[in-house]
Amino acid sequence: MYDTAIIGSGPAGLSAALNLKLHNKNIIWFGSEDLSMKVEKSEKIANYPGLGMISGAELNRRFAEQMEQMDLSLTDRMVTTILPMGESFQLLAENEIYEAKTLLLATGAVSGKGFPGEAEFLGRGISYCATCDGFLYKGKTIAVFCQDPRYEHEVEYLAGLAEKVYYYMPYSGGEIAMPNARRLSEPIKEVTGDRKVSAIHLTDGNEIAVDGLFCLRNAVAPTALLPGLQMDGAHIAVDREMRTNLPGCFAAGDCTGRPYQIAKAVGEGNVAAHTILAGL
Amino acid sequence: MYDTAIIGSGPAGLSAALNLKLHNKNIIWFGSEDLSMKVEKSEKIANYPGLGMISGAELNRRFAEQMEQMDLSLTDRMVTTILPMGESFQLLAENEIYEAKTLLLATGAVSGKGFPGEAEFLGRGISYCATCDGFLYKGKTIAVFCQDPRYEHEVEYLAGLAEKVYYYMPYSGGEIAMPNARRLSEPIKEVTGDRKVSAIHLTDGNEIAVDGLFCLRNAVAPTALLPGLQMDGAHIAVDREMRTNLPGCFAAGDCTGRPYQIAKAVGEGNVAAHTILAGL
Repeated sequence: MYDTAIIGSGPAGLSAALNLKLHNKNIIWFGSEDLSMKVEKSEKIANYPGLGMISGAELNRRFAEQMEQMDLSLTDRMVTTILPMGESFQLLAENEIYEAKTLLLATGAVSGKGFPGEAEFLGRGISYCATCDGFLYKGKTIAVFCQDPRYEHEVEYLAGLAEKVYYYMPYSGGEIAMPNARRLSEPIKEVTGDRKVSAIHLTDGNEIAVDGLFCLRNAVAPTALLPGLQMDGAHIAVDREMRTNLPGCFAAGDCTGRPYQIAKAVGEGNVAAHTILAGL
Repeated sequence: MYDTAIIGSGPAGLSAALNLKLHNKNIIWFGSEDLSMKVEKSEKIANYPGLGMISGAELNRRFAEQMEQMDLSLTDRMVTTILPMGESFQLLAENEIYEAKTLLLATGAVSGKGFPGEAEFLGRGISYCATCDGFLYKGKTIAVFCQDPRYEHEVEYLAGLAEKVYYYMPYSGGEIAMPNARRLSEPIKEVTGDRKVSAIHLTDGNEIAVDGLFCLRNAVAPTALLPGLQMDGAHIAVDREMRTNLPGCFAAGDCTGRPYQIAKAVGEGNVAAHTILAGL
């Protein structure tokens, strides 16, 4: 049993991890070793105190260096379901189960609530994890929303299983060179079905019949991850000590609201860690 | 008229100043060019994301460098009174008056509420500023609480005016080499009087008759600075957007509560600046 599970490897997650580690807590920290893509892509950051004018890539490099100095490591698995167990939380990440006394969500900003229909068909044709659910679609037709190049190998994996894969990528490059994979040029607007997913609709009005839709995003919508979590619009509702409405569950960084700023994220991660430490 | 007056040159004030400056706001920033003494005295900081293991002195050096790069400068005057004027604030700092549309208090943690009796006799024998009020005590007997070596020149100034000066310094060294200045070896416990200050009481039970008490601290108690400000214990009460109960007045950093952490302070300064920007 871990003391704390942190989800998200951006500045908020790092700030919390540093503090929990300094207090010798036993943590598991989920996230990509590439750290935050949002930071990485920032050309110039001028308002992070102590670092002058710095590129996001250089800041991430410093974060990685600090993690190494502090002997902090990431578990690069996508957490897709969290179950509150009373005194602890169970986390399902790519078919592995982890248990922790407390939970820190530092999952970043999620643009909106996903596609219309997405929440409705969760578990009935909507999936967030190719490794977890891909086998269910052997020989079937699926659509994939691939938000980031880091998920392209998952699209390939799915194309290896499914009969046909329609994928949309909101960026240029990244073609999947497999004969049964077709890139969509128009974004996905909606997912529909009856008892389960039966079609996606594109913004140009086209409809494509599919058996499932994989949404491979940098962040899963918090309410999909942890049902019962109280939101404030698109953000996780927290108090000044970074508590959510669920006992033992905390949140920090962009997922709690604007401003979407590195300084705010490190501040909230620090506060969340100290609230967690006071309760452990 | 300034857009914003920031009081305090620690990490919270700096974080806010960087953001307001980037948005081309006209700010006045009060604080010592030595920046935060609390940061300066931190031997090792291990939990500030992006800077690995760093000394407080080195972090302050980086802060100063960043201020220079961003063309940010400090006004080294002690703000002793703030008057809310409806649509703006008037600030009195060593006999100069400044006016600003919005106000950010980043004054650091104040230990308690000052001496017993201090709030009661404010303006009637209690002063926070030698330059402002020293002339009132020509030929009289006064006590001085000198919290930091940076105020020793003010004790000297007062000894040049008063008949007799009793001073207490909560640190070693720093003797005032003037014949009418006597260092107290016991801390001041209380200040008493009738209509105005008439005596200080020491922790050893001794009582010394004085006409006034100068409290030269790194931070003036926020309620002494700005009457009507709502507190939460010893801290300024704020919401998640760093608003205080007074319209146009914001607070950030240690003055809003624990954890007393640099990361928390820079986060709150950033959030306060963005709330201010949204309203200007």
